[in-house]
Amino acid sequence: MFSAVYMSETLQQGPQDLKSDCLENWCPLESRLPASAGLTYELCAGIVDKPELSLKEIARQEVLEECGYDVPLDSLKRITSYRKLKQLRTVQFKTKEPAYATRSGVGVTGSKQTLFYAEVTDEMKTGKGGGCPEEGELIEAVEIPLRDSMDFAFDETFPKTMGVIFCFMWFQSNIAPKLPAKVE
Amino acid sequence: MFSAVYMSETLQQGPQDLKSDCLENWCPLESRLPASAGLTYELCAGIVDKPELSLKEIARQEVLEECGYDVPLDSLKRITSYRKLKQLRTVQFKTKEPAYATRSGVGVTGSKQTLFYAEVTDEMKTGKGGGCPEEGELIEAVEIPLRDSMDFAFDETFPKTMGVIFCFMWFQSNIAPKLPAKVE
Repeated sequence: MFSAVYMSETLQQGPQDLKSDCLENWCPLESRLPASAGLTYELCAGIVDKPELSLKEIARQEVLEECGYDVPLDSLKRITSYRKLKQLRTVQFKTKEPAYATRSGVGVTGSKQTLFYAEVTDEMKTGKGGGCPEEGELIEAVEIPLRDSMDFAFDETFPKTMGVIFCFMWFQSNIAPKLPAKVE
Repeated sequence: MFSAVYMSETLQQGPQDLKSDCLENWCPLESRLPASAGLTYELCAGIVDKPELSLKEIARQEVLEECGYDVPLDSLKRITSYRKLKQLRTVQFKTKEPAYATRSGVGVTGSKQTLFYAEVTDEMKTGKGGGCPEEGELIEAVEIPLRDSMDFAFDETFPKTMGVIFCFMWFQSNIAPKLPAKVE
């Protein structure tokens, strides 16, 4: 779960609750949305913050931590890389001192993301998955039958990232044609 | 151009130049990268900040502002929508007063993005495009021949967003098969 979606939904459904953007004027939300309003379908992902590990090794760890599957390193197939963009915004910060400004997100936005594909079996399920609740993560692995995959990808009632839609399309073009006919 | 990519490249190639994250310790970069290090291939896009306009009308304005093409409103084909995610980060801000914290990106991250497809002709080129330089935008419309489109999409030496890769795949699956054979 990314709380950004929750904030965005709250902003849309009850903008009066978010009038204040500084702690001095902080007040509790008047009509809170349920936590499920912040849930989104997204790819298993992680930050590359361990210089001693390869990208594949980091990806393998994330699959285990978030989804509970222990995949062999050589089964991770590299799809491509891309850039994650977000305009840097200047955060105005008012105190009794003259206003200061800083930049947020350096080192995260603009950074290179690398996508891998892996196939998992029930035998590889060695962990619970779910991410790190102590870091605020709320993760559940979702299984989508192949026959429903493209309907899911383009059904906008399931909030999801561009990465999820892309990966379903990539799978449909690159993997599905090679599968035995009976696999669903 | 998104300066986030420039910052990310600078961080990777000369992290010692970005030691400080607050204005008090600000210093000029020792070895600046050329501006081209911040350039990325991305989709024409804009922020939805005009309640009186429909999504299509905003998309049409962005195509004109950024690419210089005046496309008829009814030629914009809706592809799908998705969520733009980025974990909200708490920005610590040190002053002589006790440390304050604020959130950045509310209303931008987590928000719903809607993708449109449009075909343009030379007759529709009524403006220069290029975005708003006074807002820091540096935009150039790029034409990719159809026969090179998928090579471009997966050639990682061209830094691009997931949206760009997705749209080339979507085009290949949904539009290309219906084109006359001679179109390249």
